[in-house]
Amino acid sequence: MKPEVELADVQNSVDERGIELDRVGVTDLFYPLTIREKAGGTQVATCRLNIFVGLHAAQRGAHLSHLVEALDNYRSRVFSMDSLVHLLRDVRARQDEHGLAFETAELQIRFMYFLPKLAPASGLSGLVGYDCGFDVALNRPGHKSVIVNVPIAAVCPCSLEISDVGAHNQRGVVTIQVWQMLDDTQFIWFEDLIEVAEGAASGDVHSLLRRADEKVVTEKMFREPRFVEDVVRGVVSGLRSRLKGVRYRVESKHFESIHPHNSYAQTQGEC
Amino acid sequence: MKPEVELADVQNSVDERGIELDRVGVTDLFYPLTIREKAGGTQVATCRLNIFVGLHAAQRGAHLSHLVEALDNYRSRVFSMDSLVHLLRDVRARQDEHGLAFETAELQIRFMYFLPKLAPASGLSGLVGYDCGFDVALNRPGHKSVIVNVPIAAVCPCSLEISDVGAHNQRGVVTIQVWQMLDDTQFIWFEDLIEVAEGAASGDVHSLLRRADEKVVTEKMFREPRFVEDVVRGVVSGLRSRLKGVRYRVESKHFESIHPHNSYAQTQGEC
Amino acid sequence: MKPEVELADVQNSVDERGIELDRVGVTDLFYPLTIREKAGGTQVATCRLNIFVGLHAAQRGAHLSHLVEALDNYRSRVFSMDSLVHLLRDVRARQDEHGLAFETAELQIRFMYFLPKLAPASGLSGLVGYDCGFDVALNRPGHKSVIVNVPIAAVCPCSLEISDVGAHNQRGVVTIQVWQMLDDTQFIWFEDLIEVAEGAASGDVHSLLRRADEKVVTEKMFREPRFVEDVVRGVVSGLRSRLKGVRYRVESKHFESIHPHNSYAQTQGEC
Amino acid sequence: MKPEVELADVQNSVDERGIELDRVGVTDLFYPLTIREKAGGTQVATCRLNIFVGLHAAQRGAHLSHLVEALDNYRSRVFSMDSLVHLLRDVRARQDEHGLAFETAELQIRFMYFLPKLAPASGLSGLVGYDCGFDVALNRPGHKSVIVNVPIAAVCPCSLEISDVGAHNQRGVVTIQVWQMLDDTQFIWFEDLIEVAEGAASGDVHSLLRRADEKVVTEKMFREPRFVEDVVRGVVSGLRSRLKGVRYRVESKHFESIHPHNSYAQTQGEC
Repeated sequence: MKPEVELADVQNSVDERGIELDRVGVTDLFYPLTIREKAGGTQVATCRLNIFVGLHAAQRGAHLSHLVEALDNYRSRVFSMDSLVHLLRDVRARQDEHGLAFETAELQIRFMYFLPKLAPASGLSGLVGYDCGFDVALNRPGHKSVIVNVPIAAVCPCSLEISDVGAHNQRGVVTIQVWQMLDDTQFIWFEDLIEVAEGAASGDVHSLLRRADEKVVTEKMFREPRFVEDVVRGVVSGLRSRLKGVRYRVESKHFESIHPHNSYAQTQGEC
Repeated sequence: MKPEVELADVQNSVDERGIELDRVGVTDLFYPLTIREKAGGTQVATCRLNIFVGLHAAQRGAHLSHLVEALDNYRSRVFSMDSLVHLLRDVRARQDEHGLAFETAELQIRFMYFLPKLAPASGLSGLVGYDCGFDVALNRPGHKSVIVNVPIAAVCPCSLEISDVGAHNQRGVVTIQVWQMLDDTQFIWFEDLIEVAEGAASGDVHSLLRRADEKVVTEKMFREPRFVEDVVRGVVSGLRSRLKGVRYRVESKHFESIHPHNSYAQTQGEC
Repeated sequence: MKPEVELADVQNSVDERGIELDRVGVTDLFYPLTIREKAGGTQVATCRLNIFVGLHAAQRGAHLSHLVEALDNYRSRVFSMDSLVHLLRDVRARQDEHGLAFETAELQIRFMYFLPKLAPASGLSGLVGYDCGFDVALNRPGHKSVIVNVPIAAVCPCSLEISDVGAHNQRGVVTIQVWQMLDDTQFIWFEDLIEVAEGAASGDVHSLLRRADEKVVTEKMFREPRFVEDVVRGVVSGLRSRLKGVRYRVESKHFESIHPHNSYAQTQGEC
Repeated sequence: MKPEVELADVQNSVDERGIELDRVGVTDLFYPLTIREKAGGTQVATCRLNIFVGLHAAQRGAHLSHLVEALDNYRSRVFSMDSLVHLLRDVRARQDEHGLAFETAELQIRFMYFLPKLAPASGLSGLVGYDCGFDVALNRPGHKSVIVNVPIAAVCPCSLEISDVGAHNQRGVVTIQVWQMLDDTQFIWFEDLIEVAEGAASGDVHSLLRRADEKVVTEKMFREPRFVEDVVRGVVSGLRSRLKGVRYRVESKHFESIHPHNSYAQTQGEC
């Protein structure tokens, strides 16, 4: 078998069209990673990853195997945002090492993150899974960000007001993404963002509820009816009271029980 | 360019392992087809199709291009179940014509089918899309079947009974599949199955509702609370009162507003 | 039944948190619309739509039924980009009519668009479905944009160069989005963007190929090996030679036959 | 708050329509479970679960919270097929305990399972994720089954034979499900089924390949061209040489690089 060194390095040839590429890399790579919990423990998550580098105009192709190799080297670490920033610096260094002048490296990770939740009357505990993630970009100025997708319950205030009985309600999903500067040392936990989202809804969801719990949960929902617009504004208020110097994007999508489509609201800003 | 006849026909070689294949074909083929409506009109649907033939043990491969060619020949027809049976006979004949003894041909079609719906108070009209389809199998004994997926609203009877105010409710999807013998001349319309599904739920969904409509819809839902089990049994009762000599499979899945998971019920039988 | 006018208009109440919302509306609404073809005909498409308005800080909620009603009014029109801009002006006018000062309206439409394609040797014709769409935003400065997702084939140049025989190849999807100013009268057809994408790949895909066609298609692919980076740069070159005064975003994702993950490249710019 | 015992048990009321339900339960419940590996270790998997019980004709509803509670009790166990059978017996016992005569309990679990794979020339190691699962049904006669979805590479034998250069190839997914009687003590590992699937394809997929590896992998693929039919028959042969007294279902779906649709083959049998 020919040694690697004698095989043509086609990626390393020159492209003359003068077109820089913002992102070159791999998507939908699944890898198990260990994530740090606010409560002090860790959990092993099945992660779906996208890893990219920028490609300057003269270079034909990136060496994608080095992206995966960098990730594999971090497999046994416990991850939090800072380890991701380190991993990404490593990704960029490996491309530079091959004589390439990459200016950007970027990482997007998504996984199901589990938290125990107590039923309000029975006190029974069950896990709820939240679709969470991190996005990190090393460029100028660069950013690191935390993402949560939080299932919630929402009772329609209009339906409640105008109907002689009841009101339509539905499951929704609140999405919060919060961006920090790379050198911001403020630590933002999934747990805190999830709390903000659940606090802004008519109610939160539970995997395990007895009848006595269901009564409490239902009555609470009807005391706190929320439009999709109310939920988003409530999340923004919650973020403003807890965080400083971050950019946020908040959206909520409700799977309306009386419509075949969803209702939706979204906003972004800084606090 | 070499004529087709001189190119090796690799599919037509012999496989000696003695393994018959139940289904060989193409999946996730998108094609626009024209579907006949109960109201007398037609609609052009974006269809996703799977087309299969059976492959006897000695034949290495099927000629998949003939499956697509058969379909393309039917492109300008108006479709109902019987045209699909004809198309499928054509699919099988084309394989036999190539000296292959196929015993089975099978077709699965799915598409969004639209029906106008009037809002109950304002009388405003909006379309609701239903994910519908047909499955046909030519073998022994063979069958033809109609499938509807119907979004519905369901109010939880337990939550309604035990709570001082309100009740959790949610969107659900009822799936009905009804199989007939190939020579059964009874015509089963999507419209009729959709009516059965909507009649068994707490309420149906609308794309367009004013406040006066929303009041009517909400109050109706709360007068007719339904567990997922109730919905499935109601559909079965509805089918039994309308159809004779068919097999059915009924399921309902509800996106519970107070849980991160769905509730589900399913049954099958004959009527 | 109470007339609409006597029912409380809860959406129309005041929110005092001072939070403007960028987008409020409906998502995943399915509707059939008729789309204009470059060849002069039309096709009925099953569309998935998101329709949004901006919501100023003092207004509690938008009147979402008016978004759907505006769409329903346009149901029988033949659509091209300009009809969408008109529809969207109508959406905004309906919110203003209710005393609301909306500054933004936005529309996202996606649908499968079909084009006939001839097999290169046999001349047989089959349809290929392309996932296409339009995004329009009325705000400052506003934009209208055309989107195509084009399945393509790509042979790996590195694998071809270093292997004694063959080369891995795979299906990929090229995505092109091209934004214009609202008053730009240049008409951009799906057909033209699809041609650019297919021209930049190793080969295009066909729904119907005989063996003689398969030979032509395979040999053509191997004469034009392309990395994911090459495909994106080729598309950018193609756009630059055809369009003026537009912004573009181009990406390609290849479902690598030798990896469980995909390779990816993306860039954006103006021409 | 009223004690549970005083709240109406609406599920426990009588339904008089005489309709038995095959499956009632929860779907799309996410829970982390620890899975036993063939190599002796364990891995924590993010599982998506469906849990069902049968419902006799006279009972209005099942007590779904008990399904989730049973699962939560098993959270810290190391799972293999036998623990699932135990869990399911527990699920059924909890329903009986509430005075209900359930005859069936059923469990479907899916998760990403990771295995290390060595690159053939460089010896570098990377993980490949396989979408795996278990189905267990306690009824008459009952069964337990193992499922793997294995990404593979396939070179088209026809394209290879008729083309002067190259051949189209693509990623595919082989699905194997193997059913055993509940008291069959033969242990079937994911690892063994994955090996059978990869052995029947033109090649297996790797997350990490250097150029020297890519050369080996490409040349191996072209020495072993396989139609989708060949892959399925190869898997069946592989299963027959390894297992006794089981039922199997094998399918393969290939994302053809020259078509917008997939090719597909499927069969079932016993060995």
